[in-house]
Amino acid sequence: MMHSDQTFMARALELARKGLYSTHPNPRVGCVVVRDGQIVGEGWHARAGEPHAEVHALRQAGEQARGATAYVTLEPCSHHGRTPPCADALVAAGVARVVAAMQDPNPQVAGNGLERLEQAGIQVQCGVLEGEARALNVGFIKRMEQGLPFVRVKLAMSLDGRTAMASGESQWITGPAARAAVQRLRARSSVVLSGADTVLADAARLTVRADELGLDAELTALAVTRPPLRVLVDGRLRVALDVPFFQAGSTLVATSVAASEAERYRHEGHELLEVPGADGYVDLRQLLVELAARGANEVLVEAGPRLAGAFARLGLVDEYQLFVAPKFLGSSARPLLDWPLAHMAEAPQLKIVEMRAVGDDWRIIAVPA
Amino acid sequence: MMHSDQTFMARALELARKGLYSTHPNPRVGCVVVRDGQIVGEGWHARAGEPHAEVHALRQAGEQARGATAYVTLEPCSHHGRTPPCADALVAAGVARVVAAMQDPNPQVAGNGLERLEQAGIQVQCGVLEGEARALNVGFIKRMEQGLPFVRVKLAMSLDGRTAMASGESQWITGPAARAAVQRLRARSSVVLSGADTVLADAARLTVRADELGLDAELTALAVTRPPLRVLVDGRLRVALDVPFFQAGSTLVATSVAASEAERYRHEGHELLEVPGADGYVDLRQLLVELAARGANEVLVEAGPRLAGAFARLGLVDEYQLFVAPKFLGSSARPLLDWPLAHMAEAPQLKIVEMRAVGDDWRIIAVPA
Repeated sequence: MMHSDQTFMARALELARKGLYSTHPNPRVGCVVVRDGQIVGEGWHARAGEPHAEVHALRQAGEQARGATAYVTLEPCSHHGRTPPCADALVAAGVARVVAAMQDPNPQVAGNGLERLEQAGIQVQCGVLEGEARALNVGFIKRMEQGLPFVRVKLAMSLDGRTAMASGESQWITGPAARAAVQRLRARSSVVLSGADTVLADAARLTVRADELGLDAELTALAVTRPPLRVLVDGRLRVALDVPFFQAGSTLVATSVAASEAERYRHEGHELLEVPGADGYVDLRQLLVELAARGANEVLVEAGPRLAGAFARLGLVDEYQLFVAPKFLGSSARPLLDWPLAHMAEAPQLKIVEMRAVGDDWRIIAVPA
Repeated sequence: MMHSDQTFMARALELARKGLYSTHPNPRVGCVVVRDGQIVGEGWHARAGEPHAEVHALRQAGEQARGATAYVTLEPCSHHGRTPPCADALVAAGVARVVAAMQDPNPQVAGNGLERLEQAGIQVQCGVLEGEARALNVGFIKRMEQGLPFVRVKLAMSLDGRTAMASGESQWITGPAARAAVQRLRARSSVVLSGADTVLADAARLTVRADELGLDAELTALAVTRPPLRVLVDGRLRVALDVPFFQAGSTLVATSVAASEAERYRHEGHELLEVPGADGYVDLRQLLVELAARGANEVLVEAGPRLAGAFARLGLVDEYQLFVAPKFLGSSARPLLDWPLAHMAEAPQLKIVEMRAVGDDWRIIAVPA
């Protein structure tokens, strides 16, 4: 055989990535069916409620699936959800071998799908390109394993680590390529979360805009049918309902007070959620638990130094995406994160995993060490 | 012929780079002599007062230089300095053709060397890989053209653009690989310049240390024989003569007051230079003029936010090298540069020319746009 398991799994991952902007709350999954070293069927999951990757690939393979090997980027499901179990479909199609990149991350069902296949006499292998497969569904996996979404904090800063002038003057620090990258970060997220400061100061809408995504027509169409839920953290309900953020569609507002206001928000198409913390602020961890319970895999925090700093201080951030504009905003400008520290020993350690040019700006991806 | 002019000039530039740490105040120059498509002689300039690149290459070529082509990264000199003119040596060796990467940047002599070769019947070409040749001698060229050295500001910062805690706690923000890179920046510089704050707070010596350069034995040996001049900007002579900076060898101290103190400094092996500015501070531009007059090609500024900020505000910086440690120092920590700005329109625009991992840290090179 000329091609290896890795080669076919890499293709399945490539297919899975087509679902980057639309599968949530489901994971992104791809499948390739191979007979005599040739791909005879390919599939990927596009949207929740629609067929899983395996079903598409088996349909395309038809009779050639019999005796074939199926490569799947995630263990085939064994339970009846909105669609029948894929493990059953693979058995029915008569495949001889199934290679999965990783087990189902849900500890309650992990291994069940592979076991069902084995019981049906299918040869099973698991763990091919597992690292890549896990990276693709980092949010889904964290939700399944920990009941929390993957939290990505996006910040736009100058080379000297500043986000805005002292006066608050801030818009368009970064250029169009960086803004398109942020649009794609929004589109892949289940939730885009911001704070009252940002929504008031910048008239931010935090929407996904088809013409700014920089994606091809197919992915753009998928992305706009599954826009992220926009969530506003507004502890004291400072943001009036006529600002652009609320005018741009339904939202969820997390507050620490005044459930009695819920009806006023509902009347305008928004949901008010009371998540009171001990100190009068919104309990951000509890809010994340609530969002995960609603199926949020990836949460993008686009907020000012205060709210982003609060997530950071609480250890709730999984990844920072810093868009760096090639300028200095100077020593009186606003900090990246509101997070005063007295001693270097308290300084949070990170690992920089990527620095890359994005137009005239640069993107730094860093994760807590 | 199998090889092109570019190929041989690239080799000459490679040779020239061996002089990176030792030729100053001279430029780094390499030379390759080619006969019938084969390299028959190679040379590079190692130290001022020693033979130029052409002389080494011609010696190695011997009789084979007759009728050959000589590739030089800089126009051969035509004047008697500490060594005889290289143009004469090329004529005497009987080379048929000379290819230079660039003209001599000194406007007073530019073209004279090539003209002398042409008058002797040698075929002359200029401008091959000129961009690379200019980049290699950016400091020498700026000094010849403008009477000022190339000023490179090195700063070590956290991902959120901070250099030290509010208390001043700061040492070892970055790791060993970044420190070795800084050692090499020092070694290639004619001058390493710092301020009283840094020398007092960090007990900084700003020396080149052979065992930390990370270079091979030949380049290390050359580097340590040509250490940069260490310059301290100490307007009010706050730094006592018993600190490590002064104990580590001779220095130049730039001050705005008290030429009467000169004897005390001279007695300890240091030179006191009075460069008073209008406002009681040292006149930094005048200091750079003075350093250029003494042959400084590249000046490395390793200082705190105040002095580095002063160079930046005055528009005296040619390049920033930011070593970024993967941590946050927080919003109360010290800024990158002391440079308060009120409006975004005042924000200095830069161009980021490189971002690269250096051990666990990253290096960003940015130049004023």
